Amino acid sequence: MAEKKLVESITSMETDFAQWYTDVVKKAELIDYTSVKGCMVIKPAGYAIWENIQKKLDEMFKEAGVQNVYLPMFIPESLLQKEKDHVEGFAPEVAWVTHGGLNELQERLCVRPTSETLFCDFYKNDIHSYRDLPRVYNQWCSVVRWEKETRPFLRSREFLWQEGHTAHATLEEAEERTIQMLNVYADFCEKILAIPVIKGKKTDKEKFAGAESTYTIEALMHDGKALQSGTSHNFGDGFAKAFEIQFADKDNTLKHVYQTSWGMSTRIIGAIIMVHGDDSGLVLPPEIASTQVMIIPIQQKKEGVLEKAYALRDMLKGSFRVRVDDSDKSPGWKFSEQEMRGIPVRVEVGPKDIAAGKCVICRRDTREKTETTFEALADTLKQVLADMQRDMLERARTHRDTHTYTAENMEEFVKIFDEKAGFVKAMWCGSQECEDIIKEKLSVTSRCMPFEQEHIADTCVCCGKPAKKMVYWGRAY
Amino acid sequence: MAEKKLVESITSMETDFAQWYTDVVKKAELIDYTSVKGCMVIKPAGYAIWENIQKKLDEMFKEAGVQNVYLPMFIPESLLQKEKDHVEGFAPEVAWVTHGGLNELQERLCVRPTSETLFCDFYKNDIHSYRDLPRVYNQWCSVVRWEKETRPFLRSREFLWQEGHTAHATLEEAEERTIQMLNVYADFCEKILAIPVIKGKKTDKEKFAGAESTYTIEALMHDGKALQSGTSHNFGDGFAKAFEIQFADKDNTLKHVYQTSWGMSTRIIGAIIMVHGDDSGLVLPPEIASTQVMIIPIQQKKEGVLEKAYALRDMLKGSFRVRVDDSDKSPGWKFSEQEMRGIPVRVEVGPKDIAAGKCVICRRDTREKTETTFEALADTLKQVLADMQRDMLERARTHRDTHTYTAENMEEFVKIFDEKAGFVKAMWCGSQECEDIIKEKLSVTSRCMPFEQEHIADTCVCCGKPAKKMVYWGRAY
Repeated sequence: MAEKKLVESITSMETDFAQWYTDVVKKAELIDYTSVKGCMVIKPAGYAIWENIQKKLDEMFKEAGVQNVYLPMFIPESLLQKEKDHVEGFAPEVAWVTHGGLNELQERLCVRPTSETLFCDFYKNDIHSYRDLPRVYNQWCSVVRWEKETRPFLRSREFLWQEGHTAHATLEEAEERTIQMLNVYADFCEKILAIPVIKGKKTDKEKFAGAESTYTIEALMHDGKALQSGTSHNFGDGFAKAFEIQFADKDNTLKHVYQTSWGMSTRIIGAIIMVHGDDSGLVLPPEIASTQVMIIPIQQKKEGVLEKAYALRDMLKGSFRVRVDDSDKSPGWKFSEQEMRGIPVRVEVGPKDIAAGKCVICRRDTREKTETTFEALADTLKQVLADMQRDMLERARTHRDTHTYTAENMEEFVKIFDEKAGFVKAMWCGSQECEDIIKEKLSVTSRCMPFEQEHIADTCVCCGKPAKKMVYWGRAY
Repeated sequence: MAEKKLVESITSMETDFAQWYTDVVKKAELIDYTSVKGCMVIKPAGYAIWENIQKKLDEMFKEAGVQNVYLPMFIPESLLQKEKDHVEGFAPEVAWVTHGGLNELQERLCVRPTSETLFCDFYKNDIHSYRDLPRVYNQWCSVVRWEKETRPFLRSREFLWQEGHTAHATLEEAEERTIQMLNVYADFCEKILAIPVIKGKKTDKEKFAGAESTYTIEALMHDGKALQSGTSHNFGDGFAKAFEIQFADKDNTLKHVYQTSWGMSTRIIGAIIMVHGDDSGLVLPPEIASTQVMIIPIQQKKEGVLEKAYALRDMLKGSFRVRVDDSDKSPGWKFSEQEMRGIPVRVEVGPKDIAAGKCVICRRDTREKTETTFEALADTLKQVLADMQRDMLERARTHRDTHTYTAENMEEFVKIFDEKAGFVKAMWCGSQECEDIIKEKLSVTSRCMPFEQEHIADTCVCCGKPAKKMVYWGRAY
């Protein structure tokens, strides 16, 4: 049966999660590989997800007072080198442009891996007085990091993202903005993507190159691995001092600005796939799906069936993102495709349904079917989509909570990661030495020191000395 | 007077048009220069124009069946070289990446100057059967061309654009798509940007590297120089043969696809400035302005003034893009800023207006003032903005038509370009030799062979041999 082929072509999650992921991104037609090693084509179904992410997130940014700009994609080598920690973090993984046209350049340019140095160079001339502050700018662009191992969406040499870069008169205001944007990311993940996240601070070992503090949202994938889903950095006045970004304050003295940056990338599409997907393919939260409702005609060659399908589409299109699959494939094949692509609901309508004045709605996540009259279709769909969005978040939250463990000592810690996969909450003394030991022994990293601290034990899970912080640990993408 | 400073800071158009342009892009805060030679920062006021262009044009694309995708920014050297004419046209002006991280690359990568070769490489694997056709894909991205002389928006080493790339089963369908997208650009320019354009075909000398035919829309700037504002190319099966892109047709034979590409870039912002601007700065067509209405309170410290301004904003914001300038600058300074930034209308509201239940609307283009009651404000604004949009197009059309001349022979041709600036319509025999002579003698190029042909004379304006086509000639940006 042709219907079965599409689903059979993907590996089951339980058999091989990594292969399942690779199969889904290909079969749901999200990406394709290219002749450029480590770079991918984002195909229409994949790019439509990114477009919706951009649209929703950009609306939230604008409500938070963010303005969009665009800065060059090239960074002169001398500019990249101005902040010591930053260049150490990024120089080993940038792509270098050495020739323009037929001539060798006098100074190498790197393709931006991130744009702190460019924003600093710009702000240096753009900011003069306290009246020019705050600056709350963002850009949507692509960045390049010369990674050795790559995976679609999760790690590629070029990826799409947004990077916000702000400048403030005080450290307090910078800190406030850092947390504000982290909260925007967390709200976006939970409300729009139905992905629950842990908000917290990175340890010094894991923070961004050049940052004073890095905040993160961490999500748990279906296989129990963590994915850093968005970060927000407070730079203090470190970059401002390196780049000499000063302003005349109200008291007429020259002061350095305080800066932040924050970013979310196409990586988050990997999270959507790995949090919600199943053995039939992708499952998209209704809020982010570019097609929310696929109307699938049954026996579409019979008189009146396609007409009814189009009439339903026209009735619904003011309230939903809706399409009719009127291709010449079989209904079974169309069902498989709708499922593979993660379209939240399908509406099945055939001659019998039309005669009875009814049709069937089928939810992608639970496969639950609801019969409804044509009159009640719009209202029922609204309810079904709202239920699905809410249930997806709840299911993901339950999965995360049932895969979050606690360890009081090293023995427990090792045992959990031997047998299970998930987050482990454990106490930490604050020394990088313990982080290094844990990483070496368990192959896990500190994901964050969550804002919501708990008391698991009095002592560090590694060294047994007095504990300072409760930390989420995990294996990460 | 502080009010005068802002306007006085820009050179008048008549004195020095090039300097006027440079002053406006800086003082209207559209761009800033950077440490990366030939690259610019697009500041919030400039990027907001691009965002609106993207939004409107993308809507028109989607109505025309276009799907968005994203392809890598790098092209391996061997891929760029597959189509002979194409590589000759672009290789001299690309930026080359030679190192990734600390290692030298085995093969150089160029930063895309345009993506035909990447789309071909992708389509080669993506298209198998007639069922896969047509492919109508587009991407919004930045491209790099290593230009020697650069000017903000008009010519820079990196610029933003969209590039559509399509594949079809027949040459006729490809030609139809080429013309369809040219018409989308022309409609967009006229309806949204209030810029009238000449639609036509490029001569072989001026066509795109690798294209069978290139179509263009040409606009006339205020100084009488032409600006190529959008192009659409029919590649026939040239690229398909070079890249071996084949499909199994309905008759079960393998055939090469036919391809098109079409693009519009941030260059068009230069056209908006140079078609509509005046000695007070920018003038934005209401359809594209990110702020359409600026409410400027007079004596804003007096009781009730700011409150009224905010109340009016709240009343209008469902129908217009409206803001209140509540900064602590003087009203005169605010007027100058609103004018410099090209905000289509301002609403002046002070204590006397409030007492009388009235306010004043002032149009940016004509400076015409209209008094209106608060009750009638929304309706009046709607009318004023519609009038302004229509009048701007008409004014630009009149300017173009009064600066379009005809020449029957070389003497007339030379005399016109000696004394005037604008388009010249003249007959052409079709030989590149004549084009070369005209270019050398008059420093003008053939802009296009317009779809609407006229009969100016029987003979070529250059060689006197029988004429084949009427051509628009001009000096171009």
